[in-house]
Amino acid sequence: MDLNKIFGARKTVAQVEEGNELAPKFDALGLIPAVTTDYDSGELLMHAYMNAEALFLSITTGEAHYFSRSRQAIWHKGATSGLTQKIRELKIDDDQDCIWLRVDVSGGASCHVGYRSCFYRTVPSGSGIATDGPLELEFTEHEKVFDPNEVYKGAPNPTKL
Amino acid sequence: MDLNKIFGARKTVAQVEEGNELAPKFDALGLIPAVTTDYDSGELLMHAYMNAEALFLSITTGEAHYFSRSRQAIWHKGATSGLTQKIRELKIDDDQDCIWLRVDVSGGASCHVGYRSCFYRTVPSGSGIATDGPLELEFTEHEKVFDPNEVYKGAPNPTKL
Repeated sequence: MDLNKIFGARKTVAQVEEGNELAPKFDALGLIPAVTTDYDSGELLMHAYMNAEALFLSITTGEAHYFSRSRQAIWHKGATSGLTQKIRELKIDDDQDCIWLRVDVSGGASCHVGYRSCFYRTVPSGSGIATDGPLELEFTEHEKVFDPNEVYKGAPNPTKL
Repeated sequence: MDLNKIFGARKTVAQVEEGNELAPKFDALGLIPAVTTDYDSGELLMHAYMNAEALFLSITTGEAHYFSRSRQAIWHKGATSGLTQKIRELKIDDDQDCIWLRVDVSGGASCHVGYRSCFYRTVPSGSGIATDGPLELEFTEHEKVFDPNEVYKGAPNPTKL
């Protein structure tokens, strides 16, 4: 099957921005960023990347698939952890270089560290912030939903320095 | 002023993921993706990039600053259009390579095409989607908040094919 059949050619700016044909832009590495929010709460759960195959699989199965840059492989979210993401709505932005997934999460967590959302820390901001040293983050989630050591059983941590 | 003083060094995965020191990761181009949602509605408004200076300015002024890849310049959102974004909360993800801004938008729009959100079109998804040709997008916003020709007065469109 030629999975690229579902993607139209990018011909003009007007077509891409104002048209009704899916014509996504993949970057030099063949990737498009994907933003995933919780359908009910609107909370930002994670930010990842898709290649053409991951986008095709997300669209046609209704379950979130990404491309793992650390493993260089298709990543069916939840295949290891059971924490799958059911796509309720899939949107694309004006210049069609970013995907928005609105999902229901099985098991209630999307972060490999064990938290509900990957965004479990706040950065202080606003006038009056001291800029003479590293800023201190504040945790907004205080309990993990799962224990990553149990769920991933020693698989390598995807975080890179 | 050394704006990099607010960023800590990335020493270990545990420090980056579980610590409380801001230690963002900028990519090979010096950029970090930023996801911007409406504080009240939770709607995803836009996806853009920051360099270290844009992140510093966002943190210290409380107004969203990005780095424009098309113009290769700091982009104080709303400087031209008046549609500034006041940051109510600024978060960072597990491996500190993505920023989440929760904002109030002056003027009610964040998309250069004139819509409230850049994500004004839905991609069909789920089992049974026909995959023999380009998919048809459905518009979820039907009226523009502003006329880009009036607001941007002939400035080049940032969308690239």
